[in-house]
Amino acid sequence: MEDERITLAHGNGGRFMRELIEEVFARNLAESELDVQADAAPIALHSDDVLITTDGFIVQPLEFPGGDIGSLAVHGTTNDLAVAGARPLYLTLNAFIEEGLEIAVLDRIVASLARAARAAGVQVQAGDTKVLQRGEGGGLYLATTGVGERLPGVQPALANIRDGDVALVSGTIGDHGAAVMLAREDFGLSGDLVSDSAPVMELTETLMTFDGLRFMRDPTRGGIASVANEIVRATGLGVRLEASVPVKEPVQSVCDMLGYDPFYLASEGRVFAVIAAEQAEAALAAWRALPAGKDAARAGRITANDERVILETPLGGERFLDELEDDPLPRIC
Amino acid sequence: MEDERITLAHGNGGRFMRELIEEVFARNLAESELDVQADAAPIALHSDDVLITTDGFIVQPLEFPGGDIGSLAVHGTTNDLAVAGARPLYLTLNAFIEEGLEIAVLDRIVASLARAARAAGVQVQAGDTKVLQRGEGGGLYLATTGVGERLPGVQPALANIRDGDVALVSGTIGDHGAAVMLAREDFGLSGDLVSDSAPVMELTETLMTFDGLRFMRDPTRGGIASVANEIVRATGLGVRLEASVPVKEPVQSVCDMLGYDPFYLASEGRVFAVIAAEQAEAALAAWRALPAGKDAARAGRITANDERVILETPLGGERFLDELEDDPLPRIC
Repeated sequence: MEDERITLAHGNGGRFMRELIEEVFARNLAESELDVQADAAPIALHSDDVLITTDGFIVQPLEFPGGDIGSLAVHGTTNDLAVAGARPLYLTLNAFIEEGLEIAVLDRIVASLARAARAAGVQVQAGDTKVLQRGEGGGLYLATTGVGERLPGVQPALANIRDGDVALVSGTIGDHGAAVMLAREDFGLSGDLVSDSAPVMELTETLMTFDGLRFMRDPTRGGIASVANEIVRATGLGVRLEASVPVKEPVQSVCDMLGYDPFYLASEGRVFAVIAAEQAEAALAAWRALPAGKDAARAGRITANDERVILETPLGGERFLDELEDDPLPRIC
Repeated sequence: MEDERITLAHGNGGRFMRELIEEVFARNLAESELDVQADAAPIALHSDDVLITTDGFIVQPLEFPGGDIGSLAVHGTTNDLAVAGARPLYLTLNAFIEEGLEIAVLDRIVASLARAARAAGVQVQAGDTKVLQRGEGGGLYLATTGVGERLPGVQPALANIRDGDVALVSGTIGDHGAAVMLAREDFGLSGDLVSDSAPVMELTETLMTFDGLRFMRDPTRGGIASVANEIVRATGLGVRLEASVPVKEPVQSVCDMLGYDPFYLASEGRVFAVIAAEQAEAALAAWRALPAGKDAARAGRITANDERVILETPLGGERFLDELEDDPLPRIC
């Protein structure tokens, strides 16, 4: 590139834009079938049960311990397909790039996105870039759309959830949210806190072999408390979260320090699942046999009493986890 | 809505976000099968020749004569599928909303997007919203991904273009770019200038009945000069644009006043097509029989001489239209 930073001319449809697309996007995504000259790209599908999802990413800082906005975009979007019971196949990518962003930073992020896509088994098939005037972006925003094919077997959905079902979580909660907030707050502490951003396909495909599986969700924005509240609203049942939900010590420390609650913090590589009680132990054992599920734990149970979310504390107390109200929590994902 | 303006809490995964999605997005898009609770949504496809495309929108002002960022997003994305020879079926929608945006404005834009989607025959099947901190957005950015099925018949592509082919344009050029710039400059003049933002499916499907059709493109960012330069780069042939390319008088006036060239200005409802010379007249007549093609005209010809884009002026002169360099032209689409 002739310039080291993004200029408005990188968005004008001319030579600078073409070179940016060729040298940063197409080069890093060379293993995808990205055709930078085409208006639309073919996608090969071998099922008539196709799912689509889309997600925007505005995380700040753009690079954080355990990932960056590029890998996060791949994980966030492919994980939405995975928890819906699908295998992700294709992605499209929109980049909104702020004038002044270092091209080296953009290049690192697109390279990371390409690595994450490869690891998740998805191809980036189409893309678009826009350049935002200085002061009107936040460095970089991404939007990714994912297309996948539904796997055979159960179709996990909120409507399947029944009184007496058990909730599982595939690992510690809030790692991503805590890592991003700590990176942003610039406390000089950093060491132990790493985002959990990762693909969850192994976890979801394993669970889909259980015919008692009711529902799966990746607890991103709003954390597992928000997923539990969504279950309450959709089913009219209650959710009792138990003290067994694993929280890493440094995550709890950051939360205590900054005044957050890990139950409302985003994870980006975890699955919260609801399953028939009689299959819960076997499902948990299957998850724990996977590297991504080694910290999996029972998270709680569904009950016909108390149409709300209640957390049972380690000391035998109870705490209501209501729907988030006006907490800002900006730019976590 | 309890608030009249977007706050950061509209992005936190809690109640405010849910209400915004339900009351602005889901309500306006009620005819689409938007399931606001699902991580991923099914799309029914009846062909194994599926195309996907994606586009970001940052136009400023958000509402302009002849459209707004919502209708523009639908037209821009569905038109990319249309010129690739496909019928658009589904859209996904990402909204990046700046803290402080009036919810009434957002509601108008989403309603307009929904109307445009209905008119274009596409369903908005999945969506996501993010809230940007005040000063880090530009009011509203959208990203839309479109999925469509390829129509039977010719497969228009750059590689089909041959020496001697004829270029057609479906209407006047630069109306969108000129209308947006005039709206932004706030000259107090406005009257005659209206964006051409519109669906082009009738135009493209009509042209696809001609087996001599080589290539179609919607000349958005960079205008028809940039499309012609893309043809030169991809084919090694030259493009001679002719004085017959129609430019509305007020568009030419705005260009003269602001120092722009209509050949580089975006259109958002036009098709630039290349077709075998012997079918050009019949294709032009077919376009002119459509309301969207009433101002269609011959735009030029492909030649093996001069591997560049040359404009023949009305007085018999010639002007080189090279690839755009460092012109900024921010936030036109």
